[in-house]
Amino acid sequence: MSMDFNSLAQQFTEFYYNQFDSDRTQLGNLYRDESMLTFETNQLQGAKNIVEKLVSLPFQKVTHRITTLDAQPASQNGDVLVMITGDLLIDDEANPQRFSQVFHLIPEGSSYYVFNDIFRLNYSA
Amino acid sequence: MSMDFNSLAQQFTEFYYNQFDSDRTQLGNLYRDESMLTFETNQLQGAKNIVEKLVSLPFQKVTHRITTLDAQPASQNGDVLVMITGDLLIDDEANPQRFSQVFHLIPEGSSYYVFNDIFRLNYSA
Repeated sequence: MSMDFNSLAQQFTEFYYNQFDSDRTQLGNLYRDESMLTFETNQLQGAKNIVEKLVSLPFQKVTHRITTLDAQPASQNGDVLVMITGDLLIDDEANPQRFSQVFHLIPEGSSYYVFNDIFRLNYSA
Repeated sequence: MSMDFNSLAQQFTEFYYNQFDSDRTQLGNLYRDESMLTFETNQLQGAKNIVEKLVSLPFQKVTHRITTLDAQPASQNGDVLVMITGDLLIDDEANPQRFSQVFHLIPEGSSYYVFNDIFRLNYSA
């Protein structure tokens, strides 16, 4: 990969949210057996369990809107860390919910997979 | 370290914010030359540059209040990833600001240092 970590992070994140918002049953390709997802208070490991969780979320229409996206190299091996903050628009709710998410991406051949994935809604104080 | 990653993440984060809020000139011990900080749109590398940035922030009194703290193992080598969301109370401002922060911690002897640090305020939409 000759792509710099900022471009990689941006392209990955846009691809991920587009896939999530259009057909989240296909997200399993981005995870491996050792991958971990923390979704609110739920902790899951492995592509199969992670996709089952994401598919089971109780909404039909969903749109992620990115507000901030920051990336850093996370190792000497090409790993990339991405933190995103943004808005989540669910079904016909009038008000978006704020969210924060972090991905730890690991290179694999000419692509990347998700090793760590932590997602939290930002509740109002 | 016999400590599990959740306990480590919690202890580290509490220590970090207590140190930040009481005397942030001492935070340099937690970073190394290869450490990176993204603070809003500023990117810095190295303990010296990172602490200079943190010390230069234009507030006197500051308090971090943790709302959520989630951790995952980030490698086979004991690395730990932590994502925190919370409130930042600055000087005499009446309203706290929401923030999101991620730390990538790497073991070193019987302790850990910060390799990645990304901090963002969550602006209202």
